[in-house]
Amino acid sequence: MQLGVCYYPEHWPSQRWADDARAMVEAGISVVRIGEFAWSRLEPRSGELQFEWLDRAVATLAEAGLSIVMGTPTATPPKWLVDAHPEILAVDEHGRPRGFGSRRHYCFASPVYRTQSERIVRLMAERYANHPAIIAWQADNEYGCHDTILSYSPAAREGFGHWLEKHYGDVETLNHAWGSVFWSMEVTGFEQIEAPVGTVTEPHPAIVLDYRRYCSDLVVTYNRLQVDTLRGAGVSVDIIHNFMGLFTEFDHFDVARDLDIASWDSYPLGFLERGAHDEATRDYYRQQGHPDFAGFHHDLYRAMCQGRWWVMEQQPGPVNWAISNAAPLPGMVRLWSHEAFAHGAEVVSYFRWRQAPFAQEQMHAGLLLPDGSQSRAWQELLAVRDELPGLAQQDITTTQASVALMFDYSAVWACQIQPHAADFDALELHLSWYSALRRLGLDVDIIPPTAALDGYAMVVLPCQVIADEALAQRLETAHASGSRLIIGARSGSRTPDFQIPANLAPGPLAPLTGVTIDQVDGLRPGARPRLTLPGSPQGHGLRWREQLDENRLKARIVHRFEDGMPAVTDHQGVTYLTAWLDEDSMMAIFAEASRAIDMATTVLPEGVRLRRRGTLCFAFNYAPEPRHLPDHLIPAAGYLVGGTTLPPAGVSIWSIAH
Amino acid sequence: MQLGVCYYPEHWPSQRWADDARAMVEAGISVVRIGEFAWSRLEPRSGELQFEWLDRAVATLAEAGLSIVMGTPTATPPKWLVDAHPEILAVDEHGRPRGFGSRRHYCFASPVYRTQSERIVRLMAERYANHPAIIAWQADNEYGCHDTILSYSPAAREGFGHWLEKHYGDVETLNHAWGSVFWSMEVTGFEQIEAPVGTVTEPHPAIVLDYRRYCSDLVVTYNRLQVDTLRGAGVSVDIIHNFMGLFTEFDHFDVARDLDIASWDSYPLGFLERGAHDEATRDYYRQQGHPDFAGFHHDLYRAMCQGRWWVMEQQPGPVNWAISNAAPLPGMVRLWSHEAFAHGAEVVSYFRWRQAPFAQEQMHAGLLLPDGSQSRAWQELLAVRDELPGLAQQDITTTQASVALMFDYSAVWACQIQPHAADFDALELHLSWYSALRRLGLDVDIIPPTAALDGYAMVVLPCQVIADEALAQRLETAHASGSRLIIGARSGSRTPDFQIPANLAPGPLAPLTGVTIDQVDGLRPGARPRLTLPGSPQGHGLRWREQLDENRLKARIVHRFEDGMPAVTDHQGVTYLTAWLDEDSMMAIFAEASRAIDMATTVLPEGVRLRRRGTLCFAFNYAPEPRHLPDHLIPAAGYLVGGTTLPPAGVSIWSIAH
Amino acid sequence: MQLGVCYYPEHWPSQRWADDARAMVEAGISVVRIGEFAWSRLEPRSGELQFEWLDRAVATLAEAGLSIVMGTPTATPPKWLVDAHPEILAVDEHGRPRGFGSRRHYCFASPVYRTQSERIVRLMAERYANHPAIIAWQADNEYGCHDTILSYSPAAREGFGHWLEKHYGDVETLNHAWGSVFWSMEVTGFEQIEAPVGTVTEPHPAIVLDYRRYCSDLVVTYNRLQVDTLRGAGVSVDIIHNFMGLFTEFDHFDVARDLDIASWDSYPLGFLERGAHDEATRDYYRQQGHPDFAGFHHDLYRAMCQGRWWVMEQQPGPVNWAISNAAPLPGMVRLWSHEAFAHGAEVVSYFRWRQAPFAQEQMHAGLLLPDGSQSRAWQELLAVRDELPGLAQQDITTTQASVALMFDYSAVWACQIQPHAADFDALELHLSWYSALRRLGLDVDIIPPTAALDGYAMVVLPCQVIADEALAQRLETAHASGSRLIIGARSGSRTPDFQIPANLAPGPLAPLTGVTIDQVDGLRPGARPRLTLPGSPQGHGLRWREQLDENRLKARIVHRFEDGMPAVTDHQGVTYLTAWLDEDSMMAIFAEASRAIDMATTVLPEGVRLRRRGTLCFAFNYAPEPRHLPDHLIPAAGYLVGGTTLPPAGVSIWSIAH
Ligand SMILES: [Zn+2]
Ligand SMILES: [Zn+2]
Ligand SMILES: [Zn+2]
Repeated sequence: MQLGVCYYPEHWPSQRWADDARAMVEAGISVVRIGEFAWSRLEPRSGELQFEWLDRAVATLAEAGLSIVMGTPTATPPKWLVDAHPEILAVDEHGRPRGFGSRRHYCFASPVYRTQSERIVRLMAERYANHPAIIAWQADNEYGCHDTILSYSPAAREGFGHWLEKHYGDVETLNHAWGSVFWSMEVTGFEQIEAPVGTVTEPHPAIVLDYRRYCSDLVVTYNRLQVDTLRGAGVSVDIIHNFMGLFTEFDHFDVARDLDIASWDSYPLGFLERGAHDEATRDYYRQQGHPDFAGFHHDLYRAMCQGRWWVMEQQPGPVNWAISNAAPLPGMVRLWSHEAFAHGAEVVSYFRWRQAPFAQEQMHAGLLLPDGSQSRAWQELLAVRDELPGLAQQDITTTQASVALMFDYSAVWACQIQPHAADFDALELHLSWYSALRRLGLDVDIIPPTAALDGYAMVVLPCQVIADEALAQRLETAHASGSRLIIGARSGSRTPDFQIPANLAPGPLAPLTGVTIDQVDGLRPGARPRLTLPGSPQGHGLRWREQLDENRLKARIVHRFEDGMPAVTDHQGVTYLTAWLDEDSMMAIFAEASRAIDMATTVLPEGVRLRRRGTLCFAFNYAPEPRHLPDHLIPAAGYLVGGTTLPPAGVSIWSIAH
Repeated sequence: MQLGVCYYPEHWPSQRWADDARAMVEAGISVVRIGEFAWSRLEPRSGELQFEWLDRAVATLAEAGLSIVMGTPTATPPKWLVDAHPEILAVDEHGRPRGFGSRRHYCFASPVYRTQSERIVRLMAERYANHPAIIAWQADNEYGCHDTILSYSPAAREGFGHWLEKHYGDVETLNHAWGSVFWSMEVTGFEQIEAPVGTVTEPHPAIVLDYRRYCSDLVVTYNRLQVDTLRGAGVSVDIIHNFMGLFTEFDHFDVARDLDIASWDSYPLGFLERGAHDEATRDYYRQQGHPDFAGFHHDLYRAMCQGRWWVMEQQPGPVNWAISNAAPLPGMVRLWSHEAFAHGAEVVSYFRWRQAPFAQEQMHAGLLLPDGSQSRAWQELLAVRDELPGLAQQDITTTQASVALMFDYSAVWACQIQPHAADFDALELHLSWYSALRRLGLDVDIIPPTAALDGYAMVVLPCQVIADEALAQRLETAHASGSRLIIGARSGSRTPDFQIPANLAPGPLAPLTGVTIDQVDGLRPGARPRLTLPGSPQGHGLRWREQLDENRLKARIVHRFEDGMPAVTDHQGVTYLTAWLDEDSMMAIFAEASRAIDMATTVLPEGVRLRRRGTLCFAFNYAPEPRHLPDHLIPAAGYLVGGTTLPPAGVSIWSIAH
Repeated sequence: MQLGVCYYPEHWPSQRWADDARAMVEAGISVVRIGEFAWSRLEPRSGELQFEWLDRAVATLAEAGLSIVMGTPTATPPKWLVDAHPEILAVDEHGRPRGFGSRRHYCFASPVYRTQSERIVRLMAERYANHPAIIAWQADNEYGCHDTILSYSPAAREGFGHWLEKHYGDVETLNHAWGSVFWSMEVTGFEQIEAPVGTVTEPHPAIVLDYRRYCSDLVVTYNRLQVDTLRGAGVSVDIIHNFMGLFTEFDHFDVARDLDIASWDSYPLGFLERGAHDEATRDYYRQQGHPDFAGFHHDLYRAMCQGRWWVMEQQPGPVNWAISNAAPLPGMVRLWSHEAFAHGAEVVSYFRWRQAPFAQEQMHAGLLLPDGSQSRAWQELLAVRDELPGLAQQDITTTQASVALMFDYSAVWACQIQPHAADFDALELHLSWYSALRRLGLDVDIIPPTAALDGYAMVVLPCQVIADEALAQRLETAHASGSRLIIGARSGSRTPDFQIPANLAPGPLAPLTGVTIDQVDGLRPGARPRLTLPGSPQGHGLRWREQLDENRLKARIVHRFEDGMPAVTDHQGVTYLTAWLDEDSMMAIFAEASRAIDMATTVLPEGVRLRRRGTLCFAFNYAPEPRHLPDHLIPAAGYLVGGTTLPPAGVSIWSIAH
């Protein structure tokens, strides 16, 4: 449980560096990330390398006792490189090259850019591979930020044809898999393949899905190129990438396979405006962020690299890039920090050390103000510094949660490609199920569709659109060994080729669930069929409701909507939901299932969340009002941090060892 | 009164074809449409023709006793053709060629595509012109779908110059007709003509109107090329095109002049989301469609080809292309089918036989599910099959309605080009007048502005923006012979050259109406001047209100708004409206006019509609609740179908012969 | 105080001209503007000049006794010029040349267009420089209309590099000023400079600000080219340009420096829809316009040319270009005319003489209808004609107001470039402060940030984002000499290089205000922290709230929000606001400050405004209901025009001489 910070020595006079390093150490910071974005300083002109300043910066930080994460600068190819090779620019959906003047303007498909990236990464690695203060390398920065995964450059189009050829072998197979006889979309050679963009009406969904897989694979191979280059130049320490929040444009599980540590950049306030929340919720949590935003991503990224993960960038004050940039409620920086550790983080690193008075992020807070004085976060940082040692004396091993929630990037893509009903956002649905579980006080592991399911008391699949036989088999096995399964609507409704399964939805999950879907009723925003589940206020379906083929129905209908349509079915202990249900109804369903397996749940006060790590139990209050812990949670032995009443932004921590 | 279906043999194994044909016949289907979209199967590579599979499909269907409508495949030029001649692609308003990967990517102005279209149509016609099972040909498919009428390709621009030269003769005439001295827009040669697109502020309205006429004429000549090619190759059976709902981008009357039968594709649920309805209406009718959507289009397309018309594609379940795709209320497929026959359809053909498990329309319902089992529509189809013979024993001659509603495509264009007041949608206004008439139980003929007006008790012009002397003359004649005329605001406000008439609006209609408009008050959404008409709840004007020149006023002011402004005038029995009025107020005006000519009206229960065909009277219940027929409509001799109480989606039919 | 009109002789038969001129004179019109937009008539083909018709038009108008303003026709380059030099077209943010077919399609950066403009202006000036009837020239027409200031043509990009080189000297200076080390945006030569457009995420704010300054300067030099050309060809009379409402895309103060008279085009109804008003306000004032729209612009443009200003185009009826185009309430044309004179206008000129029956503006009202008969405005024009002589007998010298409101175009740009909080529109904020002052019955001078501040009892700076030492010094001086200063949030928050000041915000204004801002809380729309000021209903902050560094706070906190955060501070009589406050709260603050300096205020009835000119006091009623003047305003000596009760659109005028 270490603290870190992101630092840009190139932004400040070198005379300042030693003072900065000393202040970091005093504030309890032990890890500092540098280097990413610095290409124009490392190589101001083609081939004119200037590493001396970075040598000095590394030396200064190392002398102060700081450990360094060295970032590769490939997120910001400099102007001379763009001018020499304009074909490295990504191309947007309208066919326009994306201009120089911010960052991430490169196209993942560009062979030229891969050559250039390999070169600069190799040069950095050759120089710093063996520096003892460097404890990790970060490859690039925030892959995909600003909508940069999908590019339609000539290189991307050509690469797509090759990718398809590799996957399908011949065009007959491809035409058949896609069903491209429809609307005469058949091709007679891979060179005829177009990117699915600019079509008169919607492009072919299977082609779009393949294009998204292809673009995701481009990130995988681009990241692997950096990893291989670093290793080839002698780097033996951990390699990391910093992922983002609410970002699903590529398959992070695939990329993470080549990394040692997954990290993510946690900006709870900025993302509140991007999440699918109503206005009242956004107003209520405007200075705190949604109580499940950070937790969901902590649990997601913990799943990437065998449990090793960091927060690489933690918001320390207002950011600059949201629609309206709120200041955090006093205490939230401390809360967010503890919460990351509660979910198992190795390092929480703040972005950034000192607010820059210039450029795009000049309104992005740092630990220091632009004039070098301490920002409002400083005292919270010191509080965390002082509280960590006491916690570190406990057992802080992160263990498997009782509930697994399956998340599949291709499920999000499938619902974006073919929403069928307005506002069907699969990520929102996953977040809603996650919230319902967490409001019951449960710890959750997020797992990919390929994960082992052993040891989970409950496995929930909010919307596993593409399900194959292997998954069905693993679910059967888990079910047989006593896991409770809860499967959401739309699961199994597509084959990997984006076709409706031969046995209709839920395809391979039909034996498990005992249902067959014969019609879908897309619910417009005003259509909210009502249902009331035991112990829950009146709820409703929204966006999507399936109708079951009665002739093929093997499951028992457990709950119905008021109009008589089936809502929840049970087949030998496997629950299936025919609809997207409101979050309170999901809590009722999870509570019912928990009771069935004797798993304790606690309905937490609004805004309060719990999380266990080793023998520690953490409670967090996201509400802007004080909250009391439920009586049965109050620890007899008292608190390590805080108490029974959590003030706004309050944190309480106690031991649950016995 | 026949049933049909759309079938894609190329989507299914040929072994399946005979079974499909047999099942169609058993379900009461006698007509099957095939062939459209199949170009890549008929000609997989340039000049490599493969008609054998289609020969076999035709033979299989014919052997089962089915009649065939053969579609030409020009809506989907295949990839090899696009690659060989990229200039056939349409170009959008931003100058981007519209990409391959869906359908309708061709530009109507492309000479190359006309050559290619003529070739493939001729080849098909030469092969099948004399096949006895083929009872009709469909030219192309849904001209204009997905916003494909307006193209800005180089070919389109060049063609526009030629079109203008043909229409105006010389640039002096053109400059004068357009008034292009304004803002120095004069040209000195037709080669200087630009398409009206991409201008700094709004382009010149007269140029836009001419461009829309030109693009409409391109559809006419493109369709005529197909008709002439078919005839030239020996086709002697009916030639059809399938038009669409709520689609006004070209003048359908002009295109239909070259056809034998007009047909349209009826998707009441999908179009509910596109119509100008409030949220409450959309929620109420979400599984039924708006009660006047199908009726309006039935009556519109009946006007195209001397009364001969079909529904070529009838929605049999949820579609895939709306914002939210609702499942129909049980019974609606039957209701929609009967309603089409009530309005005079020769054939109601369902789209499609079997839901495809692949490609863009995989979520579009068919009569069969993707696995070949029967969908929920199947029982409704059988009900219609069983009810039709009883009806066919009656006199089913479609006769002239008592009310004519004038509809002019150029009126819609004129209001789009120059709305002047937010949300002034001329099509919406026509639909509102149509609804007001139909809610009074009246049958309506929709007529073009060139139609003869003989025999109509009432002729209504909701918004006949461009009125010429010939129309004024025909209206005078109708008026003289006893027709009641009701003329809406904005009528006669433009000359055919899109100028304000020399005598101001309503131009040639001034003598008839006795009014002169000297100022228009554009009503923003919150401005709703109130008025209360006799026997009607409080109503209001919206969007548009005209002020009358009192010096030139010859009409009598019959009704005023609460603020004293004139609302309704009468000049020797000709009613003029100064404003767009709410639908209830329009009912009051139509009821008042009907009383004046002793024409009976019945205020129908919400959601109920009547329609007479020959000696049959049909009643339809679009409400999701039961409805009772008004007492005076209850037939003494009982019902052929249904009864006095109409359940949701209910149909009642009785004889009105005496 | 003269009346004028805009006239297009080229739109009408020459036989009509003399009649039109005679009617103008009879209506009291003495000034007529002609010529702008007529290039295609003056030069139908390259080099083929046809000035004879204009000679005749000038002669006809002069013979009738009218004074002429001659417009240069450069706003509408004709088609032959565009075809010969397509590179003169502006290029939009998507890289598309802006098409011919309306107006203002030229790029201010095009050297070719400058050459062509110089040529046609010189030819006109050589012909008419010494014509005795021509009393002024108008350069071009409405610079920037239809979003035409920012162009991204190759010429514009190249010019930007030169502009930067001139301003920064070398790239090291530029890189440092911009802070372009951030994200590796450094350049090594001015030829590497790109326009800030099409970037992946937001472009660098300092570059955008420089690009906007550069584009503003292009207008300055383009206008200067016209002025210099006119003078060079012998023009000695006044040179004018007609600016617009709510338009801030270039620095009008800079352009006006080369003009003799500033004028603007006043369309209160059309702009009501564009202003930042809620729906209720728009409905209430839909036929009158907002009561401060015209006044604000009158006061703004009076500041441009040493007090000399006109209304060049006054709306005389409905316009054509708003979303919904309302007809004015009867009386408003008269009211608007008097109000302009009240604020000091030399001339009020109506647009246009006669409504054109053709082209884009055919629905734009004129004094005459398209058929030549009198429009509804005619009687109002005659009323003004008859009322002016009585007023002209009084002292009508426009004198300095007691309150100065500082307006800086770059403040608007800075907030657009980096809003930080949704809907932070600096122009809206300035208008709100202006309204609060005017609702208190105060006369206001609008001043640029470079203005002398002598003689103002109160100086208010709503949002002076970029403040330099020179401004701080002048404010100190004014404060020392007794001026009350009120400074709004965000003032002084940026250096001229768009950096955060070294001492944080408010930078150079820190000594004056006694505050230092250490954090900004961006308020989302639902976040409205409450406060209640003395004598005011409950108010609230919105959009933006600053937090003060308590360690550096020297000011006294005068008012707080309900949650305890500081709202209003005072430092030795200098008021600072930490937030955007609602308009009623601003009234309370201004009233409080006025009391402190014994300046009388009057809370006017809703919709009523006062304005003094010389010894005249004018009152205007924008409400659609009658209003009474407050008792203490009722003149003992009676009224020159009107009375104590103002009907809707009423005007009262009385003498305040003693
Ligand atoms: Zn290259
Ligand atoms: Zn070609
Ligand atoms: Zn040129």
